[in-house]
Amino acid sequence: MIEKYSIRTDLALEQKERFEAEQVEIQGVVLEEDYDEEREIKITTVKIETENGAKVMGKPVGTYITMEAPNMAVPDEEYHREISVELRKYLSRFIKNEKEEYSVLVVGLGNRKVTPDALGPYVADNLNITRHVIKEYGKYAMGEDKLSLVSAIVPGVMAQTGMETVEIIKGVVSETKPDLVIAIDALAARSSKRLNRTIQIADTGIHPGSGVGNHRNAITEETVGVPVIAIGVPTVVDAATIVNDTMENFLAALESSEALKGVGLVMQGYSGAEKYELVKELISPHLNGLFVTPKDIDETVKRISYTISEALNLLFSGRTCT
Amino acid sequence: MIEKYSIRTDLALEQKERFEAEQVEIQGVVLEEDYDEEREIKITTVKIETENGAKVMGKPVGTYITMEAPNMAVPDEEYHREISVELRKYLSRFIKNEKEEYSVLVVGLGNRKVTPDALGPYVADNLNITRHVIKEYGKYAMGEDKLSLVSAIVPGVMAQTGMETVEIIKGVVSETKPDLVIAIDALAARSSKRLNRTIQIADTGIHPGSGVGNHRNAITEETVGVPVIAIGVPTVVDAATIVNDTMENFLAALESSEALKGVGLVMQGYSGAEKYELVKELISPHLNGLFVTPKDIDETVKRISYTISEALNLLFSGRTCT
Amino acid sequence: MIEKYSIRTDLALEQKERFEAEQVEIQGVVLEEDYDEEREIKITTVKIETENGAKVMGKPVGTYITMEAPNMAVPDEEYHREISVELRKYLSRFIKNEKEEYSVLVVGLGNRKVTPDALGPYVADNLNITRHVIKEYGKYAMGEDKLSLVSAIVPGVMAQTGMETVEIIKGVVSETKPDLVIAIDALAARSSKRLNRTIQIADTGIHPGSGVGNHRNAITEETVGVPVIAIGVPTVVDAATIVNDTMENFLAALESSEALKGVGLVMQGYSGAEKYELVKELISPHLNGLFVTPKDIDETVKRISYTISEALNLLFSGRTCT
Amino acid sequence: MIEKYSIRTDLALEQKERFEAEQVEIQGVVLEEDYDEEREIKITTVKIETENGAKVMGKPVGTYITMEAPNMAVPDEEYHREISVELRKYLSRFIKNEKEEYSVLVVGLGNRKVTPDALGPYVADNLNITRHVIKEYGKYAMGEDKLSLVSAIVPGVMAQTGMETVEIIKGVVSETKPDLVIAIDALAARSSKRLNRTIQIADTGIHPGSGVGNHRNAITEETVGVPVIAIGVPTVVDAATIVNDTMENFLAALESSEALKGVGLVMQGYSGAEKYELVKELISPHLNGLFVTPKDIDETVKRISYTISEALNLLFSGRTCT
Repeated sequence: MIEKYSIRTDLALEQKERFEAEQVEIQGVVLEEDYDEEREIKITTVKIETENGAKVMGKPVGTYITMEAPNMAVPDEEYHREISVELRKYLSRFIKNEKEEYSVLVVGLGNRKVTPDALGPYVADNLNITRHVIKEYGKYAMGEDKLSLVSAIVPGVMAQTGMETVEIIKGVVSETKPDLVIAIDALAARSSKRLNRTIQIADTGIHPGSGVGNHRNAITEETVGVPVIAIGVPTVVDAATIVNDTMENFLAALESSEALKGVGLVMQGYSGAEKYELVKELISPHLNGLFVTPKDIDETVKRISYTISEALNLLFSGRTCT
Repeated sequence: MIEKYSIRTDLALEQKERFEAEQVEIQGVVLEEDYDEEREIKITTVKIETENGAKVMGKPVGTYITMEAPNMAVPDEEYHREISVELRKYLSRFIKNEKEEYSVLVVGLGNRKVTPDALGPYVADNLNITRHVIKEYGKYAMGEDKLSLVSAIVPGVMAQTGMETVEIIKGVVSETKPDLVIAIDALAARSSKRLNRTIQIADTGIHPGSGVGNHRNAITEETVGVPVIAIGVPTVVDAATIVNDTMENFLAALESSEALKGVGLVMQGYSGAEKYELVKELISPHLNGLFVTPKDIDETVKRISYTISEALNLLFSGRTCT
Repeated sequence: MIEKYSIRTDLALEQKERFEAEQVEIQGVVLEEDYDEEREIKITTVKIETENGAKVMGKPVGTYITMEAPNMAVPDEEYHREISVELRKYLSRFIKNEKEEYSVLVVGLGNRKVTPDALGPYVADNLNITRHVIKEYGKYAMGEDKLSLVSAIVPGVMAQTGMETVEIIKGVVSETKPDLVIAIDALAARSSKRLNRTIQIADTGIHPGSGVGNHRNAITEETVGVPVIAIGVPTVVDAATIVNDTMENFLAALESSEALKGVGLVMQGYSGAEKYELVKELISPHLNGLFVTPKDIDETVKRISYTISEALNLLFSGRTCT
Repeated sequence: MIEKYSIRTDLALEQKERFEAEQVEIQGVVLEEDYDEEREIKITTVKIETENGAKVMGKPVGTYITMEAPNMAVPDEEYHREISVELRKYLSRFIKNEKEEYSVLVVGLGNRKVTPDALGPYVADNLNITRHVIKEYGKYAMGEDKLSLVSAIVPGVMAQTGMETVEIIKGVVSETKPDLVIAIDALAARSSKRLNRTIQIADTGIHPGSGVGNHRNAITEETVGVPVIAIGVPTVVDAATIVNDTMENFLAALESSEALKGVGLVMQGYSGAEKYELVKELISPHLNGLFVTPKDIDETVKRISYTISEALNLLFSGRTCT
């Protein structure tokens, strides 16, 4: 039943959880979990290994690493530094930096003027940009010998530019020839408990909209010509998703609650189609275009974007953190 | 059942609607409705006339005028001008400007750094401030003879100032002795369809939190010493409210839907307490502190704040609009 | 003597004036002046027609139109509208729009985070972006049949991107194939009286630094492959320029002042080299990196950027203004 | 001669230097200098001890401590932390915190929307505000026992509020009864080398305009009822000041330069009045309202405001820094 709603989640982890909730085994999708007790960071790796897995999951073949850290929403500088170090570690798994002069283009996706969508632009703002300096003076001038060339762009959204973002990235890549693109984007989560507490890294690039099809506007190795790593943080939940989740809980409660056993029994007698009709009436048409976000989103997005910038700065400075 | 939840609405109109929905007649509360077809603006006046009415409504005795204009969320300059003119008309009903030198202090409540809460500060930003000029050069210097003295302050919120807002206002009023305070604030609505489409004017001042009690922090004639007009626009809906509304619709559907007649019959057999238990399980603890807002809230709040500033500028410039 | 200082001006008009002040006739440079009394707008056209003219002027061959409007710095909406209409008129001289589907890429140069340098980004923010809509639905969908396809990009400055701006533009042009690039940039003037009161349009593109050489980073038809119109407004004067101007005035005064005739006579006895030494001692090393700007630059830049956006919106909407 | 120009400086140190330059001894003004070699911070204390000293200096009786740190304009976090610690030390000399519950109101003066004037508002933004928490829960709730009650207000400038700033402060002080007001303000320096590199602390409060007279709008113990400490950083130099300084250097050069000995001799033959006439012609009328500031003022003001906030946070948290 639920699949009939456009429940949107950009987190592979949440997509996987839904099938688990329904006790569906998916062929071609592998899950690994890890927990860093000291730092209270949960690491989940979802590997979509086959085209079948991709189809069921609605996400392309690739590896998705999710870091969940409940304290990420809290303004604790020390802790954010630890997350940066951890994030750097996972990022480095995706990046084979074997060249003498390794060059990275960071793309800050999203709309700088819409707070929950400004994550990408803010990350770009805080990066150590080095490409122009190294091009001019050589990397030894910067006192580091394992330094990568870092460049960045904030392309804006289509309503501001009139262009598909991939057109801009493709043009810039073909002119400046980086070895890798890292695209930062704000995501939609399904569960409000993950808002601003979760970072997803994927080696699949960016696929606007949720489907596996619609390759046209994707920002991927296929479309831009070099590998694309995506880093995302869920900053909103669609309002319709919140309501739908409540309904799911409700229907589950109907079927299990002792006090309402009678209702549950009646409900069991109805088909998915009948239940669907029930819920359809409840989802307000006024929820379209509305999203759920915490009141302190302005500060939260700034803080998390800084944490991600720092991870990238550590990664590309060649410094080792102990 | 519903009353047990802290369904928050700052709109007297919505509070009234809830009792109507339950076909409860409230003594001491009078409703008037008017519709401007040409401009598609619906005007509702709620008069709470007795202490009993105040208690039932959870709002103090006074007059609440609500302008609902669905197109208010749309970027149409011409239309916003018309709303300014209309708003000015209703504001002038509350203001007895008989003195030679009428002096008004506009207070922009809310937090400039949290977009949906920045309405008040933005209105203050766009006002024609005249008090200092008239004090220095006289009103004839400004080429108008019915000009009021307008001053404004953006006090900030308690987390920024460490002070109750009413302490700041009271201090400024006792020093500068305005005849009237106009307080602008962002509100919470109950229904998402009213977001950024509704302006409420009330002659009751501002009552933080919803209750009629808790007079301590209210910004009212009683606490600051001069009459206080409040102007508010709902810019958010609490996430819990959206979920609760859905549940209400659901329970109503259960009792009326033909397809689910059986469920409805069972539900009717259960008490309010049992239904309450049902819903309680459904409201996610993660919804605390979350709110629902449109994605273009940054621009919308700017536009509406400008519309309100213009209404005030018209009102206090003494110009007549034809 | 003066040429020994790097007196910076981005205005062809000011460069021309300097030669006039020294009564030097330049071969290959033609000047036309026009004055709109009603609107108090002075229009100056400088045509650099030969390579010799270009060398002397330190600016490439091409046409430079300057609109000077003293009231441009004043917040008068009506007047700004008139400037938009006028600016549109001069812009249209440069643009041969004969194609059915004419496509323009507007480039907002400069740094959004440094107020006097934010002109370009702000102009891009206020444009009617239509390319994506027309691509998707056709131009008739927009109710106009002479509509151009407008796209825009805010590339950022090299310290933010690590890339030469021309690399970004070149990439985007080769992907999206506009017929024309319009580049908006904040300029440095030589005279503080032109600050925020002057708009220069040139068909020569953008030449970072002042020289005619250094083609590498220029944004011109040669480097990006399509014609480039430049629109600029002087928002700063280098602090060293202000000081140098004062010295020039002083030396002139020395040679003409009746009271100081004696000094003048002595000065006349000294060579340019000696005078140069005099002035060199006076220019404080602390002036490097400092510039002169009005205190209300934040609002002024917003207002003028809006005026330019409106001119472009008028121009590309195909509407005729009467 | 110089006095005839309105050379503006808000730094007592610079005022003192001028008299030294002219080898004038001022009765009633005492100067002490100190240098912290390790941190490269120069500390100058100017004590104006008599009314005569105040009259000559154009500043009220009191103590002015100036910290000059050339590296303050540089983005070095470690170094800024050291300045915070140092600043805290000097601030604590002015503050006799003997009460059990010591209460401080920090006033962020200036205009948040004009970058070089936004220092005060930015400092207020980053403070640890504790008054409301301690009032509600007691200071032990915060895990510190020497904590002061900190409140803050950003009153805005007269063009925004229509009120004298002192009216607002006086009102807030009389309502909330702090023991001390600390007012933060951006200053004008005379010398560009002090821009964003200097912090002045004074126990005299704030005196808008430079004079000792004009008590009406001052923010002092006399006007608001509690002691007022002022903290200021020069963020601008008047353009006219820069030009004037150049002229002074020039006239000095004329009289000493070997190459121009002849001119010098002639100049010596002219009176102050004649020299004055010379300079008067040179100061462009277009310099009015213009100021000199570095291009990176946006970031610089943010950084320094943070340094000052940290000093205040250290001071009022009761923590000792070793």
